Amino acid sequence: MAYVFPDLSRLIAPQSVAVIGASDRAHSVGCEALKNLSQHSDFTGEIYPINPKRDTILGLKAYPDMASLPKGDVDVAMVCVPADRVLGALRDAADAGTHFAVVFTSGFAETGEEGKLIEAEMHAISQTSGMRIYGPNVPGLSNINRRIGLTFSPVFKDDKMGGKIGLVTQGGGLGRSFIQASERNIGIGLWASTGNESDLQLGDFVHYMAQDPDISVIAVLAESLRDGPRFLAAAQAAAKAGKPIIAMKVGQSEYGVKATQSHTAAMAGSAAVTSALFRQHGIVEVNDIDELIDTAALFVRAGIRKRNGICVYSFSGGTGALAADMVGAAGLTLSDFAPQTVTALKALAPSYAAVENPVDLTTAVFTVEDMNRNCLELVAKDPDTDIVLLPTPANYGGITDLSAADVIALSGGDTLFVPVWMAGYDAKGYRALNEAGVNPFHSLGKAAKAMKRLIWRGNWQAGDTPDDRVVAALPKGALDEAAAKLFLDGAGIATPRGGVATNASEAVEQADAIGYPVVLKALVPGLLHKTEAGGVAIGLADAAAVRTAWSAMTAQLATQEITLERGLIEQMVAQTGTECVIGLHDDPAFGPVLSFGLGGIFVEAIGDVTYRSVPIGPAEAARMIDDIRGHALLGPLRGRKGADKAALADVLVAVSKLGTQGQIAELDLNPVLAGPDRVVALDALIVRAENEE
Amino acid sequence: MAYVFPDLSRLIAPQSVAVIGASDRAHSVGCEALKNLSQHSDFTGEIYPINPKRDTILGLKAYPDMASLPKGDVDVAMVCVPADRVLGALRDAADAGTHFAVVFTSGFAETGEEGKLIEAEMHAISQTSGMRIYGPNVPGLSNINRRIGLTFSPVFKDDKMGGKIGLVTQGGGLGRSFIQASERNIGIGLWASTGNESDLQLGDFVHYMAQDPDISVIAVLAESLRDGPRFLAAAQAAAKAGKPIIAMKVGQSEYGVKATQSHTAAMAGSAAVTSALFRQHGIVEVNDIDELIDTAALFVRAGIRKRNGICVYSFSGGTGALAADMVGAAGLTLSDFAPQTVTALKALAPSYAAVENPVDLTTAVFTVEDMNRNCLELVAKDPDTDIVLLPTPANYGGITDLSAADVIALSGGDTLFVPVWMAGYDAKGYRALNEAGVNPFHSLGKAAKAMKRLIWRGNWQAGDTPDDRVVAALPKGALDEAAAKLFLDGAGIATPRGGVATNASEAVEQADAIGYPVVLKALVPGLLHKTEAGGVAIGLADAAAVRTAWSAMTAQLATQEITLERGLIEQMVAQTGTECVIGLHDDPAFGPVLSFGLGGIFVEAIGDVTYRSVPIGPAEAARMIDDIRGHALLGPLRGRKGADKAALADVLVAVSKLGTQGQIAELDLNPVLAGPDRVVALDALIVRAENEE
Repeated sequence: MAYVFPDLSRLIAPQSVAVIGASDRAHSVGCEALKNLSQHSDFTGEIYPINPKRDTILGLKAYPDMASLPKGDVDVAMVCVPADRVLGALRDAADAGTHFAVVFTSGFAETGEEGKLIEAEMHAISQTSGMRIYGPNVPGLSNINRRIGLTFSPVFKDDKMGGKIGLVTQGGGLGRSFIQASERNIGIGLWASTGNESDLQLGDFVHYMAQDPDISVIAVLAESLRDGPRFLAAAQAAAKAGKPIIAMKVGQSEYGVKATQSHTAAMAGSAAVTSALFRQHGIVEVNDIDELIDTAALFVRAGIRKRNGICVYSFSGGTGALAADMVGAAGLTLSDFAPQTVTALKALAPSYAAVENPVDLTTAVFTVEDMNRNCLELVAKDPDTDIVLLPTPANYGGITDLSAADVIALSGGDTLFVPVWMAGYDAKGYRALNEAGVNPFHSLGKAAKAMKRLIWRGNWQAGDTPDDRVVAALPKGALDEAAAKLFLDGAGIATPRGGVATNASEAVEQADAIGYPVVLKALVPGLLHKTEAGGVAIGLADAAAVRTAWSAMTAQLATQEITLERGLIEQMVAQTGTECVIGLHDDPAFGPVLSFGLGGIFVEAIGDVTYRSVPIGPAEAARMIDDIRGHALLGPLRGRKGADKAALADVLVAVSKLGTQGQIAELDLNPVLAGPDRVVALDALIVRAENEE
Repeated sequence: MAYVFPDLSRLIAPQSVAVIGASDRAHSVGCEALKNLSQHSDFTGEIYPINPKRDTILGLKAYPDMASLPKGDVDVAMVCVPADRVLGALRDAADAGTHFAVVFTSGFAETGEEGKLIEAEMHAISQTSGMRIYGPNVPGLSNINRRIGLTFSPVFKDDKMGGKIGLVTQGGGLGRSFIQASERNIGIGLWASTGNESDLQLGDFVHYMAQDPDISVIAVLAESLRDGPRFLAAAQAAAKAGKPIIAMKVGQSEYGVKATQSHTAAMAGSAAVTSALFRQHGIVEVNDIDELIDTAALFVRAGIRKRNGICVYSFSGGTGALAADMVGAAGLTLSDFAPQTVTALKALAPSYAAVENPVDLTTAVFTVEDMNRNCLELVAKDPDTDIVLLPTPANYGGITDLSAADVIALSGGDTLFVPVWMAGYDAKGYRALNEAGVNPFHSLGKAAKAMKRLIWRGNWQAGDTPDDRVVAALPKGALDEAAAKLFLDGAGIATPRGGVATNASEAVEQADAIGYPVVLKALVPGLLHKTEAGGVAIGLADAAAVRTAWSAMTAQLATQEITLERGLIEQMVAQTGTECVIGLHDDPAFGPVLSFGLGGIFVEAIGDVTYRSVPIGPAEAARMIDDIRGHALLGPLRGRKGADKAALADVLVAVSKLGTQGQIAELDLNPVLAGPDRVVALDALIVRAENEE
């Protein structure tokens, strides 16, 4: 699906702004918003306070309503009126040809059904008029780089830093948490906080930032994704623009899902689906606010490029050992020094220093002028070293001041320096690193996670798309297992040879044609648990067995008041291979989502499943297979041949194509038997999409 | 095994100290150590500088050697001489009747084989003389509570804070990292840094701290555990004394293992074994230095008690939702407010506040005097609430100052307050919390992890011990599968009915007695992979089949130049149940260790195994079974009956007893078939301990 994203330029950097409900009453929303724009912003455009009871507000000429403005189509109207007057204000603004409305007021969808209806009305106003709405329930929009504040936040006046990070949140508090990283010289250039998203959403701002030359890294803190595919489309635009997205998604647990629903009135979506689709689309997922901040800051410095080898460089042996340990525990790689690096280090470093990676030069390295800087330069130049991890266990005064100065002096080259300052923050060295923009991490574990994400993103590639095979329409009529399998066969997904019979003799005819042994399965509308109901007979070795099974099944089903009118006779597939589960479901956040996991008790016991948005090509399908924890079970194991992974990937590609047509609400292939020679869907369930009936 | 721990009182708080190699040369070890004791400590005992070339040093009378001291048995001799003179100094000190020697000097085991030999010699001196040695390669021993520094650290003079935490490390840098948490008012009372541990080890200091009334929480940073059982015995003493141990163990990855070996010259041990045994013994394991510090500080405040329900209390809806999310993601429980709590909160709080858990009172709660404090008091009093988690997203000036003051005012009662301060550290409220000793966490994720550990430790119970059944001695002679199984049967571990045959006729006799079908397994010394060699025949249905199998196996083995002289005939156990693996191995760090996991391809694909020190009782065995990730596979699943877990636990208890006798180097029961009615070891391998031959 191709998305058209709105041009938000006139919202982000407006030339004219009306303030509906402007006020001179201190601490009121209408007063703070007007003050932020007129007194605390570098805003040179027109400001129109709207208040029928005043002639001037805060020294600015006021207007009774939007219709009275000298110029009709203002860029932005900030709506600061109580909840019961918001719809009226929006209609007035829309009628006056306003381009964007910002609605600070809260008390809508987050309070219940009535509020949801009012928001639907807001949406309708936007749809009809073309005026786009930002809100309701937003703390504001802060264009810090250009110093324009469309916000009622009393602390906006202090948000002066600016920077390369674009921040998109839904609520205010967590965004402010990020903004205060300015204390460490980490700057946000633009902060959008989309609140209840009656119209404009997270994805719209991500897309805007992808085009904004002042922004190089996009940080997202999502409580919910109202339109997942739209968000992913925006993410694709960011990836194309070479800008990493660092995202945190609330909703890892039931508590979070519930709390989020009551906070922003939206479904949080499944964490497992979100994580898998984020990975698929190159979005760097983090698990905490400090990780969001520090990882975004790291990406601003580091950009996106392929990296691998890490050198641990320290003056404390234990700290270096721990750092190396964490590099390994994160699945990262210590660089393998070239002989010339080791030789040069040996010639330069103290005699008892460890010059292999991890490098431990001991504090003696600081007793000779420039010795530390020269050694650091050597490891930075090592051909296998892409990143130098610099753990500082504590403030050692002069030693760590010097160490920080050396890191700063050598930063900015091809090799990335990642300092970690573990304690003793009241230190000149720590402050110097932050001032120089080489922000130290505060824990080794978090630094390792951030490097892992950086390296992962540097190696990420956009997924491929499948060939443009045409997907047939679902057959009319009942979609029983036989019909589903016939349809799947046509879509290139192998199922056992089979045929339908309406009595025992037909069953035998089918079995004779297929070849023994066969399986008999009852085809009964609405009968989902065939095995439990006695509707499956396996291993039927000859015609007599088929007849017996038909009679026995007829009798067994009859006890449940079910008539066996049709049965599916199938080749009995020899059970060699690994049972997998492949499915499509209609995800509340992301629409049609493809799933893959190991079948049988494996998936039930450890829930090892991964997901993709559809469609995917064979390379992405191969990545999907490798994503599951138990993927070794598909490889050769204990002398058993591995599954045909290419054929398995083909099935995933074919199923993903089926998910693009909007005709399937749910598809379950469980199990799919992935053997060394073929991959066969042994059972199949397809549920037609409701609008496709 | 019962351990006798040394009484370290005279080392920790000595009355007389000699400084061998005392010097007045600035920055030398001998000068810094003497200065720290004579000028920067509150030390009232005798100080004896030892230096044959000086009459006085730093104003103190010097002595030429230990033999010249006026009083013979000084408590401690600090050894500050170069490596090549350390052994001589130690001999002198021992000859003079010194109780403890502290060896700062480095350049021993960490540099290679020669150094290891010298350390062995140190150990011998200690063993012969009774003088205990602390070191070599230690930065010192800081008794901060009593202000006695046996250390050459130039920053000891600033380590004035003291506190309830005892810290045991091996190296110096990471310990210093912890000490600098004093910046946040987190105080260490006693810091031991055991270096190369030629004699005294981590465990000795843990044991000392368990008895030290000034210490309430023991923090351990271990690069290696030279004597794991000794450490566990010390941990048992700490548990008995009601003092939690918070421990971090380097060696999660191969890199860490390797780096640690070159740093402290000891094996790091397996991370999986360490983690499982730490859990078993109530040791709270953490994964990073900041977690070690913050978790120890939390335990100082919180003590050990049963807790469960967590209330999230915030003035920011998004922050509260995220906090609730993290509570759930950590597997923790939000408290279920009593009706009276909700009613009282409703009556008190702002009208649009969320008074269910997570509580979001909005910033309006700070506009009415005492409203926040009163609301906070209400949730603290809620009967289901044991912990109140207080996330502050950022510094909001007056609001967060007030919020911090309220937390401080109400702290110290039955309900534990856990504040989290996520950004904006240049804040009065943040400083006030630290000053009051209610140290805020810096990230929600870390706070959730710490609460999880606190709650886990509060619920932990020491493992039970098995009944005092007598374990028989291993039989003399070859320990082939038949002998091993006979021995296991005697130890209460069921194996299939079976018997040994030396020819086909005997095999048939055995089979007739056992009942068909049977299995035939070759008993060939040294043949480990029987199946691959053709030494196993299963499903032998009658006498003829047994005869045929014997002949075929004889022929098959002959092609490999193996003579089939003996065979084991066994009942063929019907394959219902779950395959498990149970074993004993001689762990380099912990000695005999019991392992349990799911068998077959499961363990190979996902390595799902857990461990215990031996012996264990049935309750601990039940916990062990529940520890593995795939434990659901042992329960009822898909209509299949679950395994007999009590019988499985019995097998674990019996195997653990076998591990206590020192007669077994390795034991592998693979697979053990755990069925609903019985648990049978289908295959068994026992390797005799070398000294038991």
